Amino acid sequence: MSVKTMQDLFIHGLKDIYYAEKKLVQNLPKMAKKAKSPELSDAIEQHFAETENQVARLEQVFELCDMAPKGKKCPGIEGLLEEAKEIMSEAEDPGVRDAGMLAAAQSVEHYEISRYGTLIAWAEELGMRDAVKLLKETLQEEKNADKLLSQLAEGKLNRKAA
Amino acid sequence: MSVKTMQDLFIHGLKDIYYAEKKLVQNLPKMAKKAKSPELSDAIEQHFAETENQVARLEQVFELCDMAPKGKKCPGIEGLLEEAKEIMSEAEDPGVRDAGMLAAAQSVEHYEISRYGTLIAWAEELGMRDAVKLLKETLQEEKNADKLLSQLAEGKLNRKAA
Repeated sequence: MSVKTMQDLFIHGLKDIYYAEKKLVQNLPKMAKKAKSPELSDAIEQHFAETENQVARLEQVFELCDMAPKGKKCPGIEGLLEEAKEIMSEAEDPGVRDAGMLAAAQSVEHYEISRYGTLIAWAEELGMRDAVKLLKETLQEEKNADKLLSQLAEGKLNRKAA
Repeated sequence: MSVKTMQDLFIHGLKDIYYAEKKLVQNLPKMAKKAKSPELSDAIEQHFAETENQVARLEQVFELCDMAPKGKKCPGIEGLLEEAKEIMSEAEDPGVRDAGMLAAAQSVEHYEISRYGTLIAWAEELGMRDAVKLLKETLQEEKNADKLLSQLAEGKLNRKAA
């Protein structure tokens, strides 16, 4: 894909995050199943439901751009999910595995926070008000999800494992 | 590496971020050179100097753990840097390329913010006060770097490109 204008760059970023969100829809249920702590499992399941909504919002943004929704392989999310799988297979103690999965989930949240922040800045520059509104809804959900995971991380999850 | 305890998990994370920071020391100068905007180039160069310090701080944390510093290939940073290279080669217009590089740099900052946040939570659980202090210094620098990049993104950089 040749990227000549800010519009091209926006579409490039949109395809990236669409690919990433769809990958998460595939992978979050596996993570929720593997979690020992019910709080972590619930948090991941809740975020799974949100992620399905976020995919639908991205499809609306594609529509605003008069395009059919299409993902583009995104090395960022691939690497982060590989890291998550690595720690899930290497950690032997279930409590330690939960702490590792929680960290992996937070790195994914931060990736998304950064990507949505960027897309919002670009959409604002391009005067795409409706897209900005949709993307901001998702950004807020990602920030809330990260906050919830931080609370779990600082609270009893790590304590139990230690 | 087998990960049995929270201490093992902490070391695992420490090796990951050490690898990531060293990769950044290699790659940031190339990005600074490729930037068209002097503000972006300066921001990347300034963060390069900080990154060298951050590597030194991680070496102190390894020392606190009675270990020689050692990295471990980290798929997360590999993916994010691959994404950065992709946009640097695909964007034809220098202003658009700057906007894409800025976004890539922010995704790297967010990755680091998430990783340092996690390491601090684990080090606190493990009662490693000196490590917590060192890691918090770096976390603050990463947050400041992200804020500076956000200001650039929201300001004139994207405007020029559009």
